[in-house]
Amino acid sequence: MGDITILTEAELRGLIELDLEAVDCIEKAFVALARGDVEMPPILSMAIAPFNGEVDVKTAFVPGIDSFAIKVSPGFFDNPKLGLPSTSGLMVLFSARTGMLEALLLDNGYLTDVRTAAAGAVAARHLARADASHACILGAGCQARLQLKALCLVRPIRTATIWARDAGKAQTVAAELSQELGIDVRAAEDAGTAVSSADVIVTTTPATRPVLEAAWLRPGQHVTAMGSDQEHKNELDPACLLKADLYVPDRLTQTRGLGELRSAIASGLVEADRVFAELGMIVAGQAKGRSSDNQITIADLTGTGIQDTAIATLTGKRAQAANAGTLFSN
Amino acid sequence: MGDITILTEAELRGLIELDLEAVDCIEKAFVALARGDVEMPPILSMAIAPFNGEVDVKTAFVPGIDSFAIKVSPGFFDNPKLGLPSTSGLMVLFSARTGMLEALLLDNGYLTDVRTAAAGAVAARHLARADASHACILGAGCQARLQLKALCLVRPIRTATIWARDAGKAQTVAAELSQELGIDVRAAEDAGTAVSSADVIVTTTPATRPVLEAAWLRPGQHVTAMGSDQEHKNELDPACLLKADLYVPDRLTQTRGLGELRSAIASGLVEADRVFAELGMIVAGQAKGRSSDNQITIADLTGTGIQDTAIATLTGKRAQAANAGTLFSN
Repeated sequence: MGDITILTEAELRGLIELDLEAVDCIEKAFVALARGDVEMPPILSMAIAPFNGEVDVKTAFVPGIDSFAIKVSPGFFDNPKLGLPSTSGLMVLFSARTGMLEALLLDNGYLTDVRTAAAGAVAARHLARADASHACILGAGCQARLQLKALCLVRPIRTATIWARDAGKAQTVAAELSQELGIDVRAAEDAGTAVSSADVIVTTTPATRPVLEAAWLRPGQHVTAMGSDQEHKNELDPACLLKADLYVPDRLTQTRGLGELRSAIASGLVEADRVFAELGMIVAGQAKGRSSDNQITIADLTGTGIQDTAIATLTGKRAQAANAGTLFSN
Repeated sequence: MGDITILTEAELRGLIELDLEAVDCIEKAFVALARGDVEMPPILSMAIAPFNGEVDVKTAFVPGIDSFAIKVSPGFFDNPKLGLPSTSGLMVLFSARTGMLEALLLDNGYLTDVRTAAAGAVAARHLARADASHACILGAGCQARLQLKALCLVRPIRTATIWARDAGKAQTVAAELSQELGIDVRAAEDAGTAVSSADVIVTTTPATRPVLEAAWLRPGQHVTAMGSDQEHKNELDPACLLKADLYVPDRLTQTRGLGELRSAIASGLVEADRVFAELGMIVAGQAKGRSSDNQITIADLTGTGIQDTAIATLTGKRAQAANAGTLFSN
């Protein structure tokens, strides 16, 4: 049936990083979603309860993109006890013309990390104040690092604070990011103070109860909540959505079930059928974004299959150009 | 993250064939489904209309089976014009304990062919008369061949007829199967006559309008309809389901939407919420199967993710035992 390119995680890390090209790639995907010519079925999700595991499968077809990706993301939360990472998985790239298998991207979740952070950059580019220079990140994991890097790509960030439940971890990450990004990054002792003084805030935790209170929000701020992608997760006090002038989901049908919107609906603060313009509509100019420097804006990112198809296709093209990976005949 | 085994289609054909061990493997999967301890999410299905394509993703987790498979099945129906097969795809095998990627089975649909035919054998083993010796197959594609082979594994088949719209193709397949199976296989000129005289009938077509009329059915017959797996497909005259003494779905929630039951419900002959015992329940002894040699029985097979997990796990074990495939470090 032809040759298949197999790319290891190390090769993928050499081909793709979080840069403006990746951000632009994901931004185009959001625009395609807004244009409505995308096929994106609901996420396939399966629990593997005896082993505290789950697996999600996402995909999307975008007219004009030559390939489509099927992404498989297992999450097994007892793995650290076995010395293994909780998340792993791969993306499988197929020709959108023939369905033939083109490439196996054995990324162990790396490409998801990049496309997730890139979506954070897209949200900030279209919703944060143009002069946003002070960032606050809640959480100290992989996305905490990448989301701050993403903000630096699109806004003139000069200072940042990191808050995490584990203060030591926040200090370590802050020191590393200061070094890596060349800006002043400090660990915050108090989440409320850190949030209140920031221009742009990103929540990156797996929290199941709010880590950001509505009372902390100030006019002019932008918040991206990207931690909640399951129906039991929740980072924002539901009242944040009422306090905000603009709430922007990545995909409304998803955030109603998996995002911060789910908690706000469950708390009775937002009607279940209320319609909000999606991020892609704002990027495409179909809906209004921030209209003054005093508004509070919130982006609710749950992650979409179109981001996977976009980043996997970019990866496939770069691999081909660089002659990277192992060709496998089948 | 460890080693991954990659198996080509040729290697897979050397490891797995349609034999009694494969039938038993699939039968056990049906029993597990009946016991109710299986996780099997709805099929993820995506249309790629501009290229007359579609892609389906199936999976299932079965307690007691060490791995789970994610199967990706693209179908692109203009491919033959390009000299490519319509269907392709792969199965990806993961550890059910850790979610770690174990093996890539680049089967181009071969394992699906085997597990689908094996399900036909399970249906015949539990529903056809024990002395069924004359088979009739409607259709002349890959499944026509494999379903007759499957019947021969579980019933004392001595003669068979093949009917297809393309009479020449039916003749070719009949000649090949006579040779391969060592029984008398002939092409049938008239579908009605061929069906009426058979003990067991398998419909294997992609028909969207019935190819088997209720008037053709005779007491004592068993029919397996395995062609319909999409909501526009239909092989059996809906009246067949009323004429039958026993209608057996592989998975009731699926046949209501994708199988022959869908057409019967749409025609108003069967209530949408009517409950039928599934094949696995009959195999497990939880529900009654054929109770006399005069009954007409119908099995409606749409294909389930549990069959994929079962055959992929068997394949993985055989590959390990035979040291087959290519080890790939990631």
